[in-house]
Amino acid sequence: LLDLSASADASLCERLKRALRREIRNGRIGLGSALPPSRKLAQDLDCSRWVVNEAYSQLIAEGYLEARMGSATRVRWAGDEAPAHVETVVTQQPGARFDLAPGLPDLRGFPRRQWADAVRTHTLRAPVGQLGYPEAQGHPVLRQLLAEYLRRARGTAASAADITLSTSVTDGVRRMCQALLARGITVMGCEDPGWSRLREVVRATGMRIVAVPTDAGGLRVDVLAGHPEVRAVLTTPAHQFPRGTVLLAERRAALLRWARNVDGVILEDDYDAEFRYDRRPVGTLQGMDPSRVILFKSVSKMLSPALGIGWMATPPAWTQTLKESDLPAALPPTIDQLAFATLLESGAYERHLRRCRQRYRNRRDALVRHLSTLLPGCEISGAAAGLHLVLALPSGVDAEAVARAAEARSVRVAHLGDYRIRASEEHALVVGYGNLADTAVAEATAQLATAIREAS
Amino acid sequence: LLDLSASADASLCERLKRALRREIRNGRIGLGSALPPSRKLAQDLDCSRWVVNEAYSQLIAEGYLEARMGSATRVRWAGDEAPAHVETVVTQQPGARFDLAPGLPDLRGFPRRQWADAVRTHTLRAPVGQLGYPEAQGHPVLRQLLAEYLRRARGTAASAADITLSTSVTDGVRRMCQALLARGITVMGCEDPGWSRLREVVRATGMRIVAVPTDAGGLRVDVLAGHPEVRAVLTTPAHQFPRGTVLLAERRAALLRWARNVDGVILEDDYDAEFRYDRRPVGTLQGMDPSRVILFKSVSKMLSPALGIGWMATPPAWTQTLKESDLPAALPPTIDQLAFATLLESGAYERHLRRCRQRYRNRRDALVRHLSTLLPGCEISGAAAGLHLVLALPSGVDAEAVARAAEARSVRVAHLGDYRIRASEEHALVVGYGNLADTAVAEATAQLATAIREAS
Repeated sequence: LLDLSASADASLCERLKRALRREIRNGRIGLGSALPPSRKLAQDLDCSRWVVNEAYSQLIAEGYLEARMGSATRVRWAGDEAPAHVETVVTQQPGARFDLAPGLPDLRGFPRRQWADAVRTHTLRAPVGQLGYPEAQGHPVLRQLLAEYLRRARGTAASAADITLSTSVTDGVRRMCQALLARGITVMGCEDPGWSRLREVVRATGMRIVAVPTDAGGLRVDVLAGHPEVRAVLTTPAHQFPRGTVLLAERRAALLRWARNVDGVILEDDYDAEFRYDRRPVGTLQGMDPSRVILFKSVSKMLSPALGIGWMATPPAWTQTLKESDLPAALPPTIDQLAFATLLESGAYERHLRRCRQRYRNRRDALVRHLSTLLPGCEISGAAAGLHLVLALPSGVDAEAVARAAEARSVRVAHLGDYRIRASEEHALVVGYGNLADTAVAEATAQLATAIREAS
Repeated sequence: LLDLSASADASLCERLKRALRREIRNGRIGLGSALPPSRKLAQDLDCSRWVVNEAYSQLIAEGYLEARMGSATRVRWAGDEAPAHVETVVTQQPGARFDLAPGLPDLRGFPRRQWADAVRTHTLRAPVGQLGYPEAQGHPVLRQLLAEYLRRARGTAASAADITLSTSVTDGVRRMCQALLARGITVMGCEDPGWSRLREVVRATGMRIVAVPTDAGGLRVDVLAGHPEVRAVLTTPAHQFPRGTVLLAERRAALLRWARNVDGVILEDDYDAEFRYDRRPVGTLQGMDPSRVILFKSVSKMLSPALGIGWMATPPAWTQTLKESDLPAALPPTIDQLAFATLLESGAYERHLRRCRQRYRNRRDALVRHLSTLLPGCEISGAAAGLHLVLALPSGVDAEAVARAAEARSVRVAHLGDYRIRASEEHALVVGYGNLADTAVAEATAQLATAIREAS
């Protein structure tokens, strides 16, 4: 069926992908057609199942195919759209052509070559002892470099002894919750709206959640006075998620005062602070009072969430409790820790972040320009940093109806309500652009604007 | 101070290591001397701190240097031993020249080149969508290949849908405990003696532990009748840890009957079942009743614990509970999952295991031979499989005193008491040989035999 002879210079996988795209585009494999099982096709082509699976995966990501559990992989591209777009957009969820949900960085920008080289070097050359059980807190060399990076880039004051590796911010928060519970802290103040997944994780550890409202100045620290049972607060001061605001200076001071008064702790999720477009990154609460703040970081928004590398900086008084309260702690593989250390030490990590910042700033500019043209007078906020912005909807327009209309146009978008603890009358979309291809900004915003009009 | 000019063909790190070894051996850097901080030496040599840190790490592993927290790295090799041994032995804990504690596989046998190639291929070529958030249960391609591997190698019956990736057996058991707790199962029967670390993990989740004794036939299943509160049991049927015995056929049947009668579950830790020297590997309980048994595996004893790749096969009724009861689940990085899948699919993993099995069998033979010669009439058991054996001590000899005497001779060894829930009169050493260099078997056993005589 498939002619794979064209461009024999490319790998078999590449040729298979091209052939499948061609056959789907010219309609010879029509909408809904079932593709052969990968095992079967691999046999026919006399190649590894890998080749076939990778080709299928790529075409699912590109929107040509769809996979359903327990059923054959089928053609989902009807041939009525310009295929140029389809090829440049990579969606988080196969099914949406444009993924405007926040959460992903630009996966096309992952420095594959640098990472591959660093991993290879350590895989081949690491002293044999490094292949044994990793040190529970993380590799000491990486922890030292992270302490230096945090000091340099985020103004923190934490020594390597108080840096602990994790596999993500959520993993770190989960572990810290167990440490809090071990010391009798059972209630967590959480930003409303805030990152729902992180809240679920807090709740899953058995902690009780108290909603603390946020506004244009970030967390409403004054509300904490009405909740004497709260001794821990989870917050995103540099770039509130999802509002995108910065915690006001007077609230920063008030929050730290609160922590000292109630003998409490602040969990600072510094998830995308490196991407600030209007000025230098905002400093951390941790740098203001290292004895009261636990800082959480990861490479998920900086390199890729597939790496599973995170870390936290704890007050010395909490480092040991953290170590003892969670068994066993999951860690990134030693080799990956060493590879990340190499990127940190050589400066490659910070160079990468600078390149990303520039790219995201340009994309944000394009996105804001398109939205302002398509929706004259629209209100955009939280766009001075990070990988998402907040688009207020005209009064009377229901955000959920917009999200549904957008979905029908193959655009995935979130709204403030998705991140709420308590329901609210406030209606706004949360528009992520981290993993949106630059070439897709125009069409994605056009589709989104149409969806808003449809739902109005 | 250091002359690094010799053999300029080698890397700077290699030359630094050689120069340090030379200077320590010829006494120019004497016992107890402090080495310069890595930052300082790197400056002097105009190289990356990496080079110095790696050289120090290697020499610590080789026993030339020792590192103490908060203090300088110092020379610990006194120059009175044959350096040939020192260079071939890699210790788990810097400090012991011979590590006979069980737990590590042969780290020198890690297939560095194959792993590096597989990781590089996927890092450079994985579809960009694979760099996003990994699928919570693990990559579907890997899960499919693991289901096939388990069927082929361990006689299990689990579909890919019921395979869940973890970062280790302990991580998997922790997560499963939370699933059990979510369904009201709060007490775990644990083998006594058994792997202490795994028990700590069970306890840390909040489950209560009931000790179930073991004997030469494995777990004393009959004892469960006296504990109606127990509905979950954690066991090592293929190679009881630490006794090294196989669970008798009639006890296997009785254990499964027990699980059905109490509507309970069996957690089967299949940690080193692939290394069986006398016959084909013993089958799994999971294969006998997939609805009652959760099987736990990892590559820690097969490739390296530094990779952090584990998985479990759950009864379909438990798969969803497992998914929901632990947020967030830590996963191996996607690239590593794909790399492992490549090793499984190409057959490289099983070829590696066959090579390892041969190497371990030979080493076990040498170890048994040496022990029998040095300690005539000594009783060795549990040696037909795995990476450790049990050496009964002459009556009246205290195992702890032997372990201390061995430590003084730079031999790390464990004893049954280390793994006990309840104290017992039984005295035996647990002698691991997974990561013992073949060239070190003779001296390690000689030192151990002397330690036993000293403690008698």
